[in-house]
Amino acid sequence: MNKVEMTEEIILAKKNLDISWEEIAAKVGLAPVFLTSACLGMNSLKEEYAKKLCEVLELSDEIAILLQEYPMKNWDKTIPNDPVIYRFYEIVGVYGETIKEIIGEKFGDGIMSAIDFSMDIDKEKNPAGDRVKITMNGKFLPYKSW
Amino acid sequence: MNKVEMTEEIILAKKNLDISWEEIAAKVGLAPVFLTSACLGMNSLKEEYAKKLCEVLELSDEIAILLQEYPMKNWDKTIPNDPVIYRFYEIVGVYGETIKEIIGEKFGDGIMSAIDFSMDIDKEKNPAGDRVKITMNGKFLPYKSW
Amino acid sequence: MNKVEMTEEIILAKKNLDISWEEIAAKVGLAPVFLTSACLGMNSLKEEYAKKLCEVLELSDEIAILLQEYPMKNWDKTIPNDPVIYRFYEIVGVYGETIKEIIGEKFGDGIMSAIDFSMDIDKEKNPAGDRVKITMNGKFLPYKSW
Amino acid sequence: MNKVEMTEEIILAKKNLDISWEEIAAKVGLAPVFLTSACLGMNSLKEEYAKKLCEVLELSDEIAILLQEYPMKNWDKTIPNDPVIYRFYEIVGVYGETIKEIIGEKFGDGIMSAIDFSMDIDKEKNPAGDRVKITMNGKFLPYKSW
Amino acid sequence: MNKVEMTEEIILAKKNLDISWEEIAAKVGLAPVFLTSACLGMNSLKEEYAKKLCEVLELSDEIAILLQEYPMKNWDKTIPNDPVIYRFYEIVGVYGETIKEIIGEKFGDGIMSAIDFSMDIDKEKNPAGDRVKITMNGKFLPYKSW
Amino acid sequence: MNKVEMTEEIILAKKNLDISWEEIAAKVGLAPVFLTSACLGMNSLKEEYAKKLCEVLELSDEIAILLQEYPMKNWDKTIPNDPVIYRFYEIVGVYGETIKEIIGEKFGDGIMSAIDFSMDIDKEKNPAGDRVKITMNGKFLPYKSW
Amino acid sequence: MNKVEMTEEIILAKKNLDISWEEIAAKVGLAPVFLTSACLGMNSLKEEYAKKLCEVLELSDEIAILLQEYPMKNWDKTIPNDPVIYRFYEIVGVYGETIKEIIGEKFGDGIMSAIDFSMDIDKEKNPAGDRVKITMNGKFLPYKSW
Amino acid sequence: MNKVEMTEEIILAKKNLDISWEEIAAKVGLAPVFLTSACLGMNSLKEEYAKKLCEVLELSDEIAILLQEYPMKNWDKTIPNDPVIYRFYEIVGVYGETIKEIIGEKFGDGIMSAIDFSMDIDKEKNPAGDRVKITMNGKFLPYKSW
Amino acid sequence: MNKVEMTEEIILAKKNLDISWEEIAAKVGLAPVFLTSACLGMNSLKEEYAKKLCEVLELSDEIAILLQEYPMKNWDKTIPNDPVIYRFYEIVGVYGETIKEIIGEKFGDGIMSAIDFSMDIDKEKNPAGDRVKITMNGKFLPYKSW
Amino acid sequence: MNKVEMTEEIILAKKNLDISWEEIAAKVGLAPVFLTSACLGMNSLKEEYAKKLCEVLELSDEIAILLQEYPMKNWDKTIPNDPVIYRFYEIVGVYGETIKEIIGEKFGDGIMSAIDFSMDIDKEKNPAGDRVKITMNGKFLPYKSW
Repeated sequence: MNKVEMTEEIILAKKNLDISWEEIAAKVGLAPVFLTSACLGMNSLKEEYAKKLCEVLELSDEIAILLQEYPMKNWDKTIPNDPVIYRFYEIVGVYGETIKEIIGEKFGDGIMSAIDFSMDIDKEKNPAGDRVKITMNGKFLPYKSW
Repeated sequence: MNKVEMTEEIILAKKNLDISWEEIAAKVGLAPVFLTSACLGMNSLKEEYAKKLCEVLELSDEIAILLQEYPMKNWDKTIPNDPVIYRFYEIVGVYGETIKEIIGEKFGDGIMSAIDFSMDIDKEKNPAGDRVKITMNGKFLPYKSW
Repeated sequence: MNKVEMTEEIILAKKNLDISWEEIAAKVGLAPVFLTSACLGMNSLKEEYAKKLCEVLELSDEIAILLQEYPMKNWDKTIPNDPVIYRFYEIVGVYGETIKEIIGEKFGDGIMSAIDFSMDIDKEKNPAGDRVKITMNGKFLPYKSW
Repeated sequence: MNKVEMTEEIILAKKNLDISWEEIAAKVGLAPVFLTSACLGMNSLKEEYAKKLCEVLELSDEIAILLQEYPMKNWDKTIPNDPVIYRFYEIVGVYGETIKEIIGEKFGDGIMSAIDFSMDIDKEKNPAGDRVKITMNGKFLPYKSW
Repeated sequence: MNKVEMTEEIILAKKNLDISWEEIAAKVGLAPVFLTSACLGMNSLKEEYAKKLCEVLELSDEIAILLQEYPMKNWDKTIPNDPVIYRFYEIVGVYGETIKEIIGEKFGDGIMSAIDFSMDIDKEKNPAGDRVKITMNGKFLPYKSW
Repeated sequence: MNKVEMTEEIILAKKNLDISWEEIAAKVGLAPVFLTSACLGMNSLKEEYAKKLCEVLELSDEIAILLQEYPMKNWDKTIPNDPVIYRFYEIVGVYGETIKEIIGEKFGDGIMSAIDFSMDIDKEKNPAGDRVKITMNGKFLPYKSW
Repeated sequence: MNKVEMTEEIILAKKNLDISWEEIAAKVGLAPVFLTSACLGMNSLKEEYAKKLCEVLELSDEIAILLQEYPMKNWDKTIPNDPVIYRFYEIVGVYGETIKEIIGEKFGDGIMSAIDFSMDIDKEKNPAGDRVKITMNGKFLPYKSW
Repeated sequence: MNKVEMTEEIILAKKNLDISWEEIAAKVGLAPVFLTSACLGMNSLKEEYAKKLCEVLELSDEIAILLQEYPMKNWDKTIPNDPVIYRFYEIVGVYGETIKEIIGEKFGDGIMSAIDFSMDIDKEKNPAGDRVKITMNGKFLPYKSW
Repeated sequence: MNKVEMTEEIILAKKNLDISWEEIAAKVGLAPVFLTSACLGMNSLKEEYAKKLCEVLELSDEIAILLQEYPMKNWDKTIPNDPVIYRFYEIVGVYGETIKEIIGEKFGDGIMSAIDFSMDIDKEKNPAGDRVKITMNGKFLPYKSW
Repeated sequence: MNKVEMTEEIILAKKNLDISWEEIAAKVGLAPVFLTSACLGMNSLKEEYAKKLCEVLELSDEIAILLQEYPMKNWDKTIPNDPVIYRFYEIVGVYGETIKEIIGEKFGDGIMSAIDFSMDIDKEKNPAGDRVKITMNGKFLPYKSW
């Protein structure tokens, strides 16, 4: 069994138990974004969380072992075309240089880490139409001379 | 004059006055991210803000007119390679399907708008190294049948 | 079963019943373009329509559930080469900047939504050769400052 | 002088006279979409219209000659990234196979011409937000055996 | 069964009967180029020809039905590399602008249709080495203003 | 001066003399397609023809020398997008394998040369719309074993 | 069976008989490079050689028939990355224009045929490290006017 | 001045003196292929040869210095399209795996160096048409374990 | 069996024996980087090491034979996206020209061989966070004239 | 003035003073690799080092200011083709997964930072040919759950 098959088994179990990512995350004790990304094969879980997840979804030990493996993070290598995902790519395109300017101004020469990083997605009720609120939080890593 | 030359003039004026994007934004009355993106040619300003900006930076009326023009949003068409910007592209790659899952679960079938959208970048002080906090806020647009 | 297999089953049922997309759409109570796109896996159906469609095509409940799932909209990532589809890509290439100019002039800085959107395809009888008439209707989304 | 320089001169004259594409089109006696596309260098004008346009915009005879030249229709060869234009590319991606199915069903095996073709863009007032209405009209060309 | 499998069955039957495309075409009553392209899945046949072909090649009715289906014309999306096919791509590259100039001069602004189109391939005996003679014949489609 | 500037000078002289490619070719004693391709920089002329051409167009000796230089045949490296030229690319895509089958059947394993090659473009009058007739003639080159 | 499976069978038989390409080529009566390329599916063999090869490798008649089929020469469409093959691509990149200059100077305007072509690979003993010697021999094809 | 301008000056001097690459190479004391590649900016010359070349072509000392600089070997990053150069790319595609097989068989696991490498181009007279003979000679570099 | 299946068998045996690459390498008598790359199918092993490895991992003789085969080194042909691997690609991008400058200055015109090459990866303990230390060692190959 | 012009001025000054990167780096007090990358525009210098560098190379204050600016790190977006640089890309391709395996085994799930990173290039004398020794040293960044 590999990570792709692991994801299929998890999705199936989730459907059968009719449980949401948020509920699973709450039971396992992790944030929904991180928990979901691990189930989709893009992050590894510590043993404790992997076992808890399998308990919640009534899955075998093999799944728990696979969840702990370090993933090869391969995504679609061209511009994404699902509209949900593309809009984020567009945001990176439109605001990329702006982000660089603002980070440079506030922190100096360096980057926001995508590794020492977390993300949350919340729903903001709004009479003119609800809004998606995404919060990213990454460590600033300064360039160093040597 | 075109938007590229407009940006060059703004950057030059900003350097000469030794003023930050944050200070300019505060004086103009807009958020720093939006203000910067307009100065870099990726958004248009309403007349009122365009004039205010030119006043702050001691720029000509021609700049104010160019700031109001609707931009052709062209960015680098391949995977970005500046490390600051690439990390965001990597985040879209690693977390794209996760975002789709969570939005689908919380809102139904639809997308987060990249048009009816705002973004803020903050500095979070942290003894283990400061952190970059980015908040995105976009209207949820549901798919509709007809 | 997944959306691809769902589409295969629907196409097969449609062939066996010798029924057109237009007729199916009329019975289900949706526009032909939208109904067809959902059957090809590019849009999701509300429960009511999904069930009705399965009734019309004498398909199982599993198909009805799959029709309700939110699709990952993946199309061919390069320039399309089937002549029917390529011609529309050519139209976007030749008239893209024109469309931007006209929308900017009539509505201000913003876009036509591809989400809050509908499309109809009609046949216009003409002695010099019939004509295809396509009507697109999408909400205007203005860029906003913040 | 070439078509690119011709476009720049026309845009400049249009700005100085503070006249819209719609008004120019009405005076010249052509549809706004076609007239704009010719000014942007993507279509050629008949002598009569080219001269009328130069009269309206107070431009030289050289411009009138350039407007009559058959253009080399070169657009951006990759996926477009300006949001206005990208949304149309997305529509072709999401609805391309649907369009092929519906045209096949209504007309037989063949294509909608992108040459014997016209397009109109209208504004539909709507309290929930105005809507962009685009109508395309192209001759059906059947494949023939030989 | 789909068009790919249809092609495999036709090729197999052709081998077993040891019959050439030219002979099949003569018996069916179509030109060899068109007949071959339909057997390779790039064109559809009218019912009459599809049935005749199946008779000649002693194939089932299912093949006759598949031959009538409108094909999705997908070819290799990059520059072709089989030397036979590449040479034609090279010809388009070297002579493309020349063709545009000559067609423009002889017909006005417009294109040669690739839909209302036929092609023949003949052998020209020559003591210095035989020659391939290819004749293409397509309707001229003028651009129209509106 | 280089081949690009040479082409510009030739096009300008041709416009000023109001002479067609067909007329120039007749005076020089070459086929219009070949003559035009050499003027566009895609083929070289023998000294005799180069001098004759400069005489006809009243051009300097420098142009005659440039016409004799062996060109670097660089064309647009991606799929062409001018509709006139794209249609030929589409023909190569749709009929490429068919051409290979027919040539293989008629000549054996080998290719049609794109070097020992000629092309003519004719106008076929037709009440239902004039037709473009293109004839290609290339030497068959058989693969050889060693 | 197809050419890919044919190659697999040949490689297997070669391994089992523990025989080199050079030995096979000597027994069949062809050059090693040509023989190997035909076994890898990139060239076709005349009937006589195909039968001889099957005799040497104790293979069935079906293999002999497949060896005679005209191959579709498809190779990896991007820059090759196996280091052995990449180095040749690098040579074409570094020396391409030089080759064009020297061929032009020695032969006139034209190309070296890749069809009427042979290649040999020899080992040159050298105390400082053995050397690979590759000899290519192709017919010069001059461009012709018409 | 840079390498591109250096090449232009050398080509110009070569034209004015009406001297061939072969003659220049003979006078300088290098092989024509290597000498030409250095003049085209793809290799560096030792001081002695650089000075000799400038003497032969009556060029300044600045050219001699530029000839000694280590070049950045940038060639066209996509598949080459000049027919002379493309044919070599085709040879690499068709015979790449064959070359790998033969080198592996004759030398063991390793590559032919493209750095410790030389190439010669000769003309072979032949009544059926002259032939281009290219000889490549590169050091074999074995992979080593550690 | 092929190299891909060989790798799968080795990974499985390694898991079952719960042994690290470092431990395997120590027992076989090779460096961990080289040993791992051969197990992943990117290098070949000498017979002695191949047999030793199979002994350590309790694998069959077939694996030992496959380990000795010369691999076709195919990796992902686009920019890598796993973050671990991408960072090295980024290093090549950011420091590539710098490396060329320094090698040129220290060694003259030439390259570092990627064939006569070794690599080691070590862990450097550090209270501020451990560090990865990678040492590459490749033979300098000078360009030679001829 | 921008970073590209800054690099040109530095290279010119370096040539005129006939000083090596190693000597400059020693005088400025930084490692040669880092110092060179900053001069080539790929890293920024602290004020102190920027001023020292300008002193050593006798350059103006404007250069010192440009050296302190945070660079937009844009490198060639496709596979590099200069042989020196390509070899490193090949190393990433051949050893990428091996590096990932070894880092995972020694450090856990995470990456080597390309930001908190240093590199040194040394010459190792060797009678069989000198060797290039490159040492990379980057902080290990573990993935964290949240």
